[in-house]
Amino acid sequence: MQRPLQIDQVTAALRDRLKERLSANPTLRSQHANTASWVPPEPPDLVIFPETTEEVAFVVSVCGELGVPIIPFGAGTSVEGQVNAPFGGVCLDMTRMNRVLRIGARDLDCTVEPGITRKALNLALRDQGLFFPIDPGADATLGGMASTRASGTNAVRYGTMKDNVLALEAVMPDGRIIRTANRARKTATGYDLTRLLVGAEGTLGIITKLTLRLHGIPEAIAVARCHFPNIEAACDAAIASIQFGLPLARMELMDALTVGAINAYSDTGLPEQPILLVEFHGSPASVAEQLKNFEEIVSDYGATDVVSVDAPEECNKLWQARHDAWWAALRMRPGCLAYTTDVCVPLSRLSECVSLAGAEAQRLGLVAPTVGHVGDGNFHMLVLLDPDSTSEKKLGLDFAGWLANLAMSMDGTCTGEHGIGQGKQDALRRELGDSTEYMAAIKVALDPLGIMNPGKIF
Amino acid sequence: MQRPLQIDQVTAALRDRLKERLSANPTLRSQHANTASWVPPEPPDLVIFPETTEEVAFVVSVCGELGVPIIPFGAGTSVEGQVNAPFGGVCLDMTRMNRVLRIGARDLDCTVEPGITRKALNLALRDQGLFFPIDPGADATLGGMASTRASGTNAVRYGTMKDNVLALEAVMPDGRIIRTANRARKTATGYDLTRLLVGAEGTLGIITKLTLRLHGIPEAIAVARCHFPNIEAACDAAIASIQFGLPLARMELMDALTVGAINAYSDTGLPEQPILLVEFHGSPASVAEQLKNFEEIVSDYGATDVVSVDAPEECNKLWQARHDAWWAALRMRPGCLAYTTDVCVPLSRLSECVSLAGAEAQRLGLVAPTVGHVGDGNFHMLVLLDPDSTSEKKLGLDFAGWLANLAMSMDGTCTGEHGIGQGKQDALRRELGDSTEYMAAIKVALDPLGIMNPGKIF
Repeated sequence: MQRPLQIDQVTAALRDRLKERLSANPTLRSQHANTASWVPPEPPDLVIFPETTEEVAFVVSVCGELGVPIIPFGAGTSVEGQVNAPFGGVCLDMTRMNRVLRIGARDLDCTVEPGITRKALNLALRDQGLFFPIDPGADATLGGMASTRASGTNAVRYGTMKDNVLALEAVMPDGRIIRTANRARKTATGYDLTRLLVGAEGTLGIITKLTLRLHGIPEAIAVARCHFPNIEAACDAAIASIQFGLPLARMELMDALTVGAINAYSDTGLPEQPILLVEFHGSPASVAEQLKNFEEIVSDYGATDVVSVDAPEECNKLWQARHDAWWAALRMRPGCLAYTTDVCVPLSRLSECVSLAGAEAQRLGLVAPTVGHVGDGNFHMLVLLDPDSTSEKKLGLDFAGWLANLAMSMDGTCTGEHGIGQGKQDALRRELGDSTEYMAAIKVALDPLGIMNPGKIF
Repeated sequence: MQRPLQIDQVTAALRDRLKERLSANPTLRSQHANTASWVPPEPPDLVIFPETTEEVAFVVSVCGELGVPIIPFGAGTSVEGQVNAPFGGVCLDMTRMNRVLRIGARDLDCTVEPGITRKALNLALRDQGLFFPIDPGADATLGGMASTRASGTNAVRYGTMKDNVLALEAVMPDGRIIRTANRARKTATGYDLTRLLVGAEGTLGIITKLTLRLHGIPEAIAVARCHFPNIEAACDAAIASIQFGLPLARMELMDALTVGAINAYSDTGLPEQPILLVEFHGSPASVAEQLKNFEEIVSDYGATDVVSVDAPEECNKLWQARHDAWWAALRMRPGCLAYTTDVCVPLSRLSECVSLAGAEAQRLGLVAPTVGHVGDGNFHMLVLLDPDSTSEKKLGLDFAGWLANLAMSMDGTCTGEHGIGQGKQDALRRELGDSTEYMAAIKVALDPLGIMNPGKIF
């Protein structure tokens, strides 16, 4: 990148074509910096709202010629600073490219633009009896979810974004438009560029279309909730359910601290003990069988107050507690800065990892409620910090680093689903060592000018 | 690569360490060329049997210094010439690196060396109630299966190699040893090097360890076989079963020509009509329910002679016909050269694609029995050619090119699971256009000397 950035030249080159869809308004710019996490915001110089792939390619070409960074932006819900502009540059807000281009009900697939959110997509699919399963919590855009390799609550059954993207269209750093694959459900055509762009956080190209795998809305759905005497028992019950082979659709853990926060937030009156909240999908008979097996398994681990429901509104009511968990936890310490950890470990180490992490947080005097996608071995601690206390912030970050190292020592990862962004670059190098140099070599090969979301991952 | 190759220098540099595990024996060399398909064999100059990752790294370093190609070799069952040595060089026969290093029963994973075959792996897993589902037919090695992104009969339920490899250890072209991921079931740590090496056909590095996802052996298994009046009805019944959401473990199609060949091969006396052969995994109740639903669905498509069994030996008996299909088909024309097509199309186009392909083969006078992993939209036509007839070979290759184009016109792929190798390079460029240039850029970035399995994919 050239210094200083040639923002005026970029503006001059783009304004005729993009008109009012190009803006340097300071409020708009600050809305397009990282706003969803502890990472300090770094706004871009310009915000552009493209409406077509060709416009994206045009912007990329102009920015390439002038050496100006491009930062793709979806819903802005990433938590490791993926949408920040540490070197300034142009934010490409993709939310006007939000159409469903095709639904292939017979093929169980669809093609969408990257700016559509997962809730809007599922609304469009519902009439056809189909759904897209990946649910990272936030109503993120599909482009953002692909770029960060998002997963969330349904991953234990349906996989992550890497498993549910069939093909991508992308504008590459040289401005060319490519298609990474056709719509076949499997392919062996050379290097897997689809999977390379999924998780690349916009550093190798801008996703402009996604072809996604869909699933039929299950005939029957049931939800069960149960309480455990301690967090180890809850983890062990989760692991036993997976090992038994139950095809659980979701399995979420909340620790006692989180349950207390939820009670305070919405007066739920739940026993303040760790909870497993589990969803079953299938035929009515299969769901009933899964539920019966699940109840038998968890009873071996001291589960109490087992509740199970299958009416949709009852299921939603049970899930509400989980949906409220984030906001309820933040209320535990009004005005706090929240740091979310994201380690993921092999199932056999989950109980130990959750337990050691809780003890260490307590030892340090940190308030850190825990929720987990425990069927995958992934859990989050929401470390609630005083934004005005430098020492507390340091304590929180040190704890997160310690936890990442603990997960690595258990053959796990520092990030199950949030990605690297600006926040986990050191952890990535600690985790994968020399591998990161080959990642960097790929980055240089595809983006020699370094214009694509610079300062992320590397 | 330097010309002429410095094979004597390579031999001199390696012999002290590898001793009798380095050989230039002509018979051995010719056994290590492509022997499993229509692609003419091109033997390497040397065959080396490494026993450790460090030995692989040593060989790669020496070959790198001397600019000599390295061709990794597993079971030699790839069909697009992936193990040929078109520029000569060193074949790394990985079959002595065939240990199971670790079985994580609680984590449903294992770590193996690349030279173990899938049958040997499943034998090692059986005692623990676990299995590895990918079954490409041949008893291939896991390293080879990963390198070609293999799949096969179980992919409809369990995915392909890309879905079942958690992490890889690999020796990169510069001789360094990397690990692409830890053992967590999901991760968002930057570029997905695991998925980049899966399907790279040994052109980016040599896989030296694989960490694999395992599955519990299902409590109950049943197999059903039924016949259809024509191939369109069989395909449509297959599609309807998938759309219904049946969690089928396998669903194989055989056309009337294949059934006739099987009858001639082993006197099975089956009605010479298209067959679907389907396997169900689950609890006893779930398998019974799936079977009932399947029978209802296929009856709408004119299925007759429906047979279903659940005793293991009976299941094996039904599967035997499918296992014999390849050999039975070859017997239709003794001494023939067999060319296997491998297109994969969206399910909605499968029936039309199979039907058009069959009609075209007939019009050309080609004998081409068809089998298909139809739950994924993938099917193979085994084109039986006279090895002494240049015109017939040309006719067969032209037909294969025509079929690849037909699949692409239906938004499908020229290769569902066999890969590119030497045989599908033109088809790859037709299918993905500019994308192949970014693949080539990655190749040059990671293997600037071009020593890793040169002449494949590109």
